[in-house]
Amino acid sequence: MGTNGALGEFELISRFFAKRGHGLGVSLGIGDDAAVLELPADSDLVAAVDTIVCGKHFLEDADPRSVGHRALAVNLSDMAAMGATPAWATLALTVPAADADWLQRFADGLLDLADAHGVALVGGDTTRGPLTVSVQILGHVPHGTALRRSGGNAGDILAISGTLGDAGAGLALLKSPPAQLSPDANALIRRFDYPTPRVQLGLAARGMASAAMDLSDGLVGDLPKLALASGLAAHVEIERLPLSAPMRNLLNADQALDWALAAGDDYELLLAVAPNRFAELKAAADQLNLTLTAIGELRAGSGVTWSLHGCKFVPRVLGYDHFAQASTQITV
Amino acid sequence: MGTNGALGEFELISRFFAKRGHGLGVSLGIGDDAAVLELPADSDLVAAVDTIVCGKHFLEDADPRSVGHRALAVNLSDMAAMGATPAWATLALTVPAADADWLQRFADGLLDLADAHGVALVGGDTTRGPLTVSVQILGHVPHGTALRRSGGNAGDILAISGTLGDAGAGLALLKSPPAQLSPDANALIRRFDYPTPRVQLGLAARGMASAAMDLSDGLVGDLPKLALASGLAAHVEIERLPLSAPMRNLLNADQALDWALAAGDDYELLLAVAPNRFAELKAAADQLNLTLTAIGELRAGSGVTWSLHGCKFVPRVLGYDHFAQASTQITV
Repeated sequence: MGTNGALGEFELISRFFAKRGHGLGVSLGIGDDAAVLELPADSDLVAAVDTIVCGKHFLEDADPRSVGHRALAVNLSDMAAMGATPAWATLALTVPAADADWLQRFADGLLDLADAHGVALVGGDTTRGPLTVSVQILGHVPHGTALRRSGGNAGDILAISGTLGDAGAGLALLKSPPAQLSPDANALIRRFDYPTPRVQLGLAARGMASAAMDLSDGLVGDLPKLALASGLAAHVEIERLPLSAPMRNLLNADQALDWALAAGDDYELLLAVAPNRFAELKAAADQLNLTLTAIGELRAGSGVTWSLHGCKFVPRVLGYDHFAQASTQITV
Repeated sequence: MGTNGALGEFELISRFFAKRGHGLGVSLGIGDDAAVLELPADSDLVAAVDTIVCGKHFLEDADPRSVGHRALAVNLSDMAAMGATPAWATLALTVPAADADWLQRFADGLLDLADAHGVALVGGDTTRGPLTVSVQILGHVPHGTALRRSGGNAGDILAISGTLGDAGAGLALLKSPPAQLSPDANALIRRFDYPTPRVQLGLAARGMASAAMDLSDGLVGDLPKLALASGLAAHVEIERLPLSAPMRNLLNADQALDWALAAGDDYELLLAVAPNRFAELKAAADQLNLTLTAIGELRAGSGVTWSLHGCKFVPRVLGYDHFAQASTQITV
């Protein structure tokens, strides 16, 4: 045990996280060398990991509740993209100090979202160092039904859930806040601080969509991955990109388009769906009070092309890449 | 894509890791939003996560091959402690720069050990920041057969695989190397740099041992956890602690005992086994060319007591805790 109110590592994990570490299919949760988990019969296991780093994926002064929410949300979004039911998560947390108040708020943010999705936190590891949060999410699908990036067919409609660019604009507002934040500005900030993983839509899309992925790095960065995985070309009519009311209220059209094309952190789903299944998928989204917008299509060939009112369009901005040099600097 | 030879994030992961990302039960490996995995029928899933941080768990100038090996080894050791067959791993890697040579050696260290244990790397996430490696390991056991810390019974023999303290002494030698390293010193250093997870012993112990855990934080730190989980007291006769020949050659008895009691990083197994099953378990270890040493027993009550030649003994040193203040400073 340390001094000055610092908590021992073992106690740290159990105090903040173990209390909510039990759930469906958890034979053995936090506190042993590993968790023991029971998958439903005839299921495939679906596993993903995503790390968020202070100063890279969230601001240094971010509300710890938002950091906890985000760390799990980005992983739940991966489950959504696979059409998987999220079930369990493990947490690898690196913190500069064992600050009980910070940890409590962080845990609340993470565990409230976990509870909302029926996810149990079943393992954790805490180390001291620069603030880094890595979550691995585990979920399941009926055998053979996971959505993949590679399943797209030529002629499929490309569709987007929700609206694009809000989180990127919200982040810019957080970085350079105006004197007074309007309700529209706060709405955009909230989209960055508390992304909503589209888990229910992913479940609904299973068996309907032919391919899926989540948009974490921006449409310009992510769409080529789906097209490549499916061995096809993609075309997008950018006048169709779904923009939120706060975006349209606050920004001019060019700015809004830049955000919608290139900014990351939206965690909306990009889906490929056969034209004769689109109405059905849109109805499923409606049931979830979520918009679903057709923005283009998959075609034979390779690469991604963009058009604006029928004219060829070249995006001014590239998708977000943690190792790229300053490719996404956009000022509001 | 960045400049100056830096690699894009997407390429970074696929270049170094994807080539060996397929294996048994992997329906979909690296490259989608998540991996899709098939467990053997009637199995429980076993999941653990462990993070290692530069400057905390390995030295700043550590051979990247050793860092890669260690990152997976500490997780394989958790599978060993559960009696689980390791199958898949995901990697959350935070690196200060995309150094291709460093990454290649790191990947070699990690993937060579993965191959040796039939583990497929099925997911990864790379971010830029202070060097931190978090691996989540996934494995399986026949339903209901996982070894737990809580299964111990009063009267059980406490047994240790291999020898204790070598890695701690090796780390001390790395930190303050003598002018010339003897073969004994190099043997200890190798025990720190390339820990050997006791996966095969864990599998053999399933159905024989009543409780198990791996020794990552030192016997003094770890044994109380097993005793507490089993609701029992533990007693250890410290003259029985298994010491390696290099330890006995290089250090006096008191020093060797301190390392064996308190130093972490050995990744040996601590097993509780009924007296009438001990010979059988020892024979299984013999088959693996691994020593198994009885060091004490579980008793009714609570807490851990130690004796030396029949006299009460109080360890001078405490187990390793990342948040504790300088409790494990031992000088060679």
